[in-house]
Amino acid sequence: MKHKPVAFPCHVKLERPSALDKTADRDRLEGQLQRMGMAHVEIPLNVQRKLSEALRAGDFELDVVIGVKPSKSRNETGWRLIDIGKATTYGLAIDIGTTNIECAMFDLSTAEKILIHGVENPQIKFGHDVLTRVQRSMTGESSLMSDVLADGINRMIRGICELKNISADEIAAVTVAGNTIETHFFLGLDVRNIPLSPYVPAVNGAFFSTAAEIGLEMNQNASVYVFPNAGSYVGGDVISGILFSGLSKEERPCLFIDVGTNVEVTLGCRDWIMVGAGAAGPALEGGVAGIGKKAESGAIYKVKINSENKKAEVEIIGGGEPTGICGSGLIDLVSEMFSSGVIDSSGTLCGPEEDIPERMGEKAYIVYGSAEKELYLTQSEIKNFILSKAAMFSFLYVFVKSVGLTFRDIDKVYVAGALGCGIDLQSAMNIGMMPDIPKDKFIPLGNSSLQGAAMVLLDSGLVSEVDQIAKKITYREMNEDGELMSVLQGAMFIPHTEPDLLKG
Amino acid sequence: MKHKPVAFPCHVKLERPSALDKTADRDRLEGQLQRMGMAHVEIPLNVQRKLSEALRAGDFELDVVIGVKPSKSRNETGWRLIDIGKATTYGLAIDIGTTNIECAMFDLSTAEKILIHGVENPQIKFGHDVLTRVQRSMTGESSLMSDVLADGINRMIRGICELKNISADEIAAVTVAGNTIETHFFLGLDVRNIPLSPYVPAVNGAFFSTAAEIGLEMNQNASVYVFPNAGSYVGGDVISGILFSGLSKEERPCLFIDVGTNVEVTLGCRDWIMVGAGAAGPALEGGVAGIGKKAESGAIYKVKINSENKKAEVEIIGGGEPTGICGSGLIDLVSEMFSSGVIDSSGTLCGPEEDIPERMGEKAYIVYGSAEKELYLTQSEIKNFILSKAAMFSFLYVFVKSVGLTFRDIDKVYVAGALGCGIDLQSAMNIGMMPDIPKDKFIPLGNSSLQGAAMVLLDSGLVSEVDQIAKKITYREMNEDGELMSVLQGAMFIPHTEPDLLKG
Repeated sequence: MKHKPVAFPCHVKLERPSALDKTADRDRLEGQLQRMGMAHVEIPLNVQRKLSEALRAGDFELDVVIGVKPSKSRNETGWRLIDIGKATTYGLAIDIGTTNIECAMFDLSTAEKILIHGVENPQIKFGHDVLTRVQRSMTGESSLMSDVLADGINRMIRGICELKNISADEIAAVTVAGNTIETHFFLGLDVRNIPLSPYVPAVNGAFFSTAAEIGLEMNQNASVYVFPNAGSYVGGDVISGILFSGLSKEERPCLFIDVGTNVEVTLGCRDWIMVGAGAAGPALEGGVAGIGKKAESGAIYKVKINSENKKAEVEIIGGGEPTGICGSGLIDLVSEMFSSGVIDSSGTLCGPEEDIPERMGEKAYIVYGSAEKELYLTQSEIKNFILSKAAMFSFLYVFVKSVGLTFRDIDKVYVAGALGCGIDLQSAMNIGMMPDIPKDKFIPLGNSSLQGAAMVLLDSGLVSEVDQIAKKITYREMNEDGELMSVLQGAMFIPHTEPDLLKG
Repeated sequence: MKHKPVAFPCHVKLERPSALDKTADRDRLEGQLQRMGMAHVEIPLNVQRKLSEALRAGDFELDVVIGVKPSKSRNETGWRLIDIGKATTYGLAIDIGTTNIECAMFDLSTAEKILIHGVENPQIKFGHDVLTRVQRSMTGESSLMSDVLADGINRMIRGICELKNISADEIAAVTVAGNTIETHFFLGLDVRNIPLSPYVPAVNGAFFSTAAEIGLEMNQNASVYVFPNAGSYVGGDVISGILFSGLSKEERPCLFIDVGTNVEVTLGCRDWIMVGAGAAGPALEGGVAGIGKKAESGAIYKVKINSENKKAEVEIIGGGEPTGICGSGLIDLVSEMFSSGVIDSSGTLCGPEEDIPERMGEKAYIVYGSAEKELYLTQSEIKNFILSKAAMFSFLYVFVKSVGLTFRDIDKVYVAGALGCGIDLQSAMNIGMMPDIPKDKFIPLGNSSLQGAAMVLLDSGLVSEVDQIAKKITYREMNEDGELMSVLQGAMFIPHTEPDLLKG
C-alpha cells in the first residue's frame, strides 16, 4: 500500500541472538523496525511482556501491528507497536451523528471495506437534539451522556465482531468524526461550557489516544484518532466531510451542504473556508411529517402525480406496501403537488372544497391509500415543509451573498447527508430549495463525515491536511443576520416570490 | 531550579476566553505552556476531563505538574501533563536490591530530600539470590516474583506516605535502578531466557512508562524511568552507580567496587568502561558468620583486640549490648585477630590448645561475652571469610591486570554498597582485601545505585548520559579466567603470600 493506515500489520524477521550478539529482545526488534524505516517505535509494556515468548515461538519471525502516531511537534512520524502475533488487523471509521452512529470497517492490510453498519445513537432517549443532552449533563448527571454513548458504541462494535466473526482484539485503529458536542461526549470531556457565552469547548485540536484510555472494547492498545473541531458550532464531522469532498483543494469557491439533524453549509476553496449552520434539518429528513421516516425499506422515495386525477404513483424502497416517506421522497412529493396543481405557490391545497379530504381535523393530501394502509400529508405539514425549504434556501442565499458572491460564482455544490443520496435535484430546484444552477454542478456525497473518517483511517498522512482545514475555517453566525428574514419571507412561496434570487 | 526533574510543579496563568478568543480550554493551556517553553505537551485524557472545571474554579489560573519525557528519537525534550490542581509534587528514587529495596523521597519543587526508607525485598522468601527466583519463574508461576515485588514496593510507598502524611496521588515521578533481573521483575518482563545461553534479557534500553502501566499505587500518570542495563550481568544499578561516582567523566582509570549481595567491579574512565562481577558478596556483608547482621542498631562495627589478653573491645551501632556484627566490623575483627596474633596468616586460630574455646564442635573466638549474650566466630567461619576476601582481591587484581594496568595506574577507588559506608580501609588493606594503595585514593559512596537514581530524578537531562554510560560498558566474564585461580591460592593467606601483588 502506498499510504500508511492509522494501523497496519507487518511481518518482521530478526537475526537470532548468539554469543556474539546478545542484544535484548526488545532492542533487537527496535533495531529491525528501524532498518525497515520505522525508527523509535514506542512499545507498550503489555506488548513487551509477551515479546520474548512470541519471538521464540516463531523462531525470531513475528507478525506485528504498527500504529502510526503523527507527531504534533514535527512533520516526522511516530510509530507505536500495537500488538504482536496477529496477521489480520481491522480498523473502524465512526461517524457519531446526533441521531445515528454509522461505522465502516476495513481490513487494514488490504484497505478492503468489510462492512458498513449503523445504529441509533442511544442518547436519543434523553433528547433528539444535542443541546437537550448538554442540559442533562449540566444538571448533575455529568457523565451519563458519555456512558450511554460509550455503551452504545461498544455494543455496536460487539455486534460487528459477531457479524463478521472476528475478535475485537483484532481491531487496532479507530477514527472518529462527530459534531463538537458528540465528540466531547465520546471522550468524556466537559460539555457544560459549550452552551454558555463565550461558547468555549474543552478541546479544539485533534485527539490521539488509545482504546484503553477512552474505554473502547477492542485491542486496548488500538490507536484512536478523533477529528478536531473549529469551535462549538463546527464539529469534526464537518471537517471530515470537507476533507472527503475535496473542497479544500478547489481553486474556485464551492458549496458543501450537509443535511443531517441540522443543516451545515460550507463555502470556500483552498484559500478560505467559511461554515455556517442552521436548524432546518429535521424537516428535510422527513421529520416534519407524521409519515416521515428514514430512507430505509418501506419508504417512498419517488413520487409522480397525475395532473388529471391528482393521484400519486409512488416508488418504494424494497418494494411492497409503503410505511412512510423519506426526505427525498417528500421533496419529490411537494414538487409534484405544485406542478400538478394540488397546491398553489403558497403551499395551500387548492381545488373544489369538497374534493379535498380531511384528516386529523384539517385538509390533507392522500399520498397512498389501500385497504390496509393510508399515508397522507396535512395542510400544516405542507406549510412546515415549505418553512424548512425556505429556511434552507434563505440560509444558502444569504450565506453566499455575505462573502460578496452569487450562486453563479459557485463551481460545485456537494450535497451530503441523508439528502445527498437519493435527492431528485430537479424537484429540489422546482420548489426553490436548491439554487437554480446547472445540475452537473451538483455532486452527491452520502455520509461524507463517515467517508472522511475512513480516508484518514486508511491514510494517516491526512491528519495534517485535516488540521489545515480546521485552521482555515471561520464560523459565520447566521441567526443575527437581518437579511435572512427578508429573504425567508419570499422563500415561503414555491419556488420564490423573486425567482431571480434562485439563480443568485 | 537549573535542572528539570523528571516531574515538577508549575503555575500557569491563562487569558480568560472571550467573544474574540474562543480557543478551547485544552488548546488555550497548550498555547500558554508553549509560550513558557514547553511545546507540544502531551495531555492524558484523564487530565483533560477535569481541565474545564479546574480552569474555571481557579479563574483561569492553575497549578500543573509537568513530566519531562526525554525523546528517544531526538535531542528535543517532550512534555507530559501529569496532573492539574496540585501545588506539591514528590518524586521517588528506588534501588531494587536483591536483599533490600531502598527508596529516597524528594520534594520536586525544591529538590529537598524528605526521607530515605528501606525495606527487605519480599522476594527473599523465595530465595536469597536472583537465580533461584528466576528458576522459580521458569517452573510455571511466571508472574509470582513480579507480583511479590510489586506488592512490596506498593507497601513501601504506602508506608512512606503514611509516615510523611502525604497522598500517594502527589507522587508524580519515579526513577528505578536495579540489577537486570530485578528490573525485569519490576516491569513484569520475561526473565526466563536470562539464564539460558546466549543469556539475552527482554530489554536493554532505558524504559519510560507510567505508574498505571506498571501498576504502581501513586498518581496514575506519574512518570516512571527505569535505568537501562548492559546485558544480563550488568544491571541498571551498576550504571546508576557509575553515574553517581563520576567515573565516566574521569580522564584516568578509576575502580568502582560495589559490594552488595554480589561484588561488582567497574574499571574505566571517560573513554571506556569495563564491568565484571563475582559472587564474593555475602561474606563481606557479614553473611558468612552466624553472628553476621546488617549495619543497623546493635551491630558491632568496630573492634580492637588487646594483644596481651586477646580480648576484644567492640563499638556498637546505637550502643548497648551487641546483637551481631556487620560487614565492616567483621573486616575490622579479622584484621585485629591477625595483628594481635589470635590467628596466623592462614586464618588458623593459634595459641595454647587449652586457651582456645570450642563452640558448635569446633575452635572459636569469643568476640563478646556477657551474662546474657555471647558472640563468637568459629574456625570454619574465619576460613570462609578469608575465602571471600581472597576472592574479592583476586578478582580485582586479575580484572585490573587484564586490561594491562596495575593498581598503581588507578587514580581513584570508589567503594559503594553496605561496605562502602563504614569500612575501615586500613583493616581491609591489612588483611589483603583491598589493594595497598594510598588511602586518599579511596572514596566511599554508600548506596551509589540509589544516589544515581536520585540524580536522574532531580535532573532528567542526565538520561542521555546514562545511555552513553550503558553503551560504553563492556562486560568481562571472569569465571573463565585461568589466572584467577592461581592468584586466589595466594590470597587465601593474610595479607597474601606475595605481598607485592597488593600494590599491583
